[in-house]
Amino acid sequence: MITVAKERNGVGITKGVEPGMTIGSCPLPISDHKEIVMAHGSGGRLTQQLIQKMVLPQFKNEFLNPLHDGAMFSVNDTKLAFSTDSFVVNPIFFPGGDIGELAVNGTVNDLSMCGARPLYLSAAFILEEGFSMTEFWRVIQSMQRAAQAAGASLVTGDTKVVDRGKGDKIFINTSGVGIIDPRVNIHPGRAQVGDKIIINGPIAVHGIAIMSVREGLEFETEIASDTAPLNGLVQTMLAAARDIHVLRDPTRGGITSTLSEIAEQAGVGIRLEEASIPISEEVKGACEILGLDPLYVANEGKLLAFVRPDEANLVLSVMRNHSLGKEAAIIGEVVADHSGYITMKTRVGGTRVVDMLSGEQLPRIC
Amino acid sequence: MITVAKERNGVGITKGVEPGMTIGSCPLPISDHKEIVMAHGSGGRLTQQLIQKMVLPQFKNEFLNPLHDGAMFSVNDTKLAFSTDSFVVNPIFFPGGDIGELAVNGTVNDLSMCGARPLYLSAAFILEEGFSMTEFWRVIQSMQRAAQAAGASLVTGDTKVVDRGKGDKIFINTSGVGIIDPRVNIHPGRAQVGDKIIINGPIAVHGIAIMSVREGLEFETEIASDTAPLNGLVQTMLAAARDIHVLRDPTRGGITSTLSEIAEQAGVGIRLEEASIPISEEVKGACEILGLDPLYVANEGKLLAFVRPDEANLVLSVMRNHSLGKEAAIIGEVVADHSGYITMKTRVGGTRVVDMLSGEQLPRIC
Repeated sequence: MITVAKERNGVGITKGVEPGMTIGSCPLPISDHKEIVMAHGSGGRLTQQLIQKMVLPQFKNEFLNPLHDGAMFSVNDTKLAFSTDSFVVNPIFFPGGDIGELAVNGTVNDLSMCGARPLYLSAAFILEEGFSMTEFWRVIQSMQRAAQAAGASLVTGDTKVVDRGKGDKIFINTSGVGIIDPRVNIHPGRAQVGDKIIINGPIAVHGIAIMSVREGLEFETEIASDTAPLNGLVQTMLAAARDIHVLRDPTRGGITSTLSEIAEQAGVGIRLEEASIPISEEVKGACEILGLDPLYVANEGKLLAFVRPDEANLVLSVMRNHSLGKEAAIIGEVVADHSGYITMKTRVGGTRVVDMLSGEQLPRIC
Repeated sequence: MITVAKERNGVGITKGVEPGMTIGSCPLPISDHKEIVMAHGSGGRLTQQLIQKMVLPQFKNEFLNPLHDGAMFSVNDTKLAFSTDSFVVNPIFFPGGDIGELAVNGTVNDLSMCGARPLYLSAAFILEEGFSMTEFWRVIQSMQRAAQAAGASLVTGDTKVVDRGKGDKIFINTSGVGIIDPRVNIHPGRAQVGDKIIINGPIAVHGIAIMSVREGLEFETEIASDTAPLNGLVQTMLAAARDIHVLRDPTRGGITSTLSEIAEQAGVGIRLEEASIPISEEVKGACEILGLDPLYVANEGKLLAFVRPDEANLVLSVMRNHSLGKEAAIIGEVVADHSGYITMKTRVGGTRVVDMLSGEQLPRIC
């Protein structure tokens, strides 16, 4: 029996659960919600709360704590990254991609955000009884193409089937192992005052591509998901400037949720320049129609890099020479004030605080 | 565009799909079923067919092909194992365990069956909207205890939420990385004529524990799942006899599905001795009531070892001295005839062929 005290995992018992109530052997550390709600999967505040209060105190270890996109550890002096992600996107086929490609790129990118070169991937399928074999085949082929494009090998897998109505066509988990150059040290905690924040292209594309299918919106030009493997771009960036401090891909919850997490972890402030954040006119228009703030809309194939000010222009230029970084831009910088928060200089000249996503805008976006 | 010819992946187009029909860029290689059926997740013949016809030809590589419990590869001369498994067991709490413990032990055991010492695990959750927070908390605590018992660290994770009715409470994927002693070489292809086949205890326990809950059966003594981490037992066995040829945990599909796969891969025959296969009276009775053949019923916390005849008694004795091998027994041997098949000398003295599971006896057993 485990005897983690209330105080030890740093959370009290509040409304919704009787004081002193124990489940298994420890008191339930979360109580604002007695049930899982969609927003627990948003990538925003509630996801963070769920992980920080329920999961981290139980599994506390030196590798898990950084809340990075993957874990980093050494085995016989070889520095490795290890990452996992499940994909439940709906619909499974969408403009610019499908769940298979998304699943492979997702783990390739999580490994890349650790500065790792992705080597080996796993694929585990949860199929719903009645799922079309031809659609499954399309998904598998798409995964194969994505793995090949990323130069990673899919080496192990698993297939489970659940009864009709207990799943939704197909869920895919991909996990992966990558190798990290020992001279590279990328970590959310390394964000430093003065660092420039670079993004490799326009935001909010993936989220809007998915929503446009769900809502039946039509645009003059189809908005296609920006899903892409970022390992090539990252290796190019690291070859130019090995001392990149932080890399993260701003998927669920959008760029502000990702940046908020980094600001909180590193204990720094982040100042964004709204006018510098690349966004296409069509995505902007779609966001207005759908009532969505593009800063919170999911991206794929995008990364945020925290780079020393003296290397920012160099990194920016190598990114712009890469096919996945043509529209790269410096969108802000790390500052000493407002520690843990993001402030944004708006287009009209004011300054506002931008918080992490609360609630859920776009369920099942990845 | 990929141009894998029909001939290259070794399968033709038959009924159910029009000749020459292409999906994406390649012809659909499987056609007996136009949709996923429960038996595709059985661990038996249809699972094997799905993997061999749909997945393997696409992802062909030296690491995937052995169809082992995990992939084995070297990074900078360090031999690693990497494995993944998703868990969809229903109900999520059952006598002797729960989905959390099962998920951790499952990946710990898959790594162990590669001869690896499990080091790092990932956990990815797919939660259904409305899933009870207290149940989630119980599952997480159970995973923590299981990881601790196995001496492995849970280092990275993911949480997704799907809408009510699109999942079933909780699905868990665990993946893991382990390290293999370079002198160990465990592989299904190494099964050799003369090898003794050892099991560490009585069969069919997990499957019957789950079924008894589902069917509301009551026994004089509760039948509790045999879920357990096997890494300690395996390390003990390898310390006694490093040249163990094959290790596999006979989960879905039971011992015969696992042994059939090994027989097919190694191109050998397997002869079992029914009277030597340990099974408890209660499990036997439950199988009779439920109309199940225990040879096809799922196990957890069990392993099959293929051991050189001159080392079989040594391995058996160290197993019997371990808490998870007290009832270990030699249940058969590898033979030259009936290559790819299992024959069994029955209790009444006859001999019958035992095939891989076809159809699905016990859906969502793990």
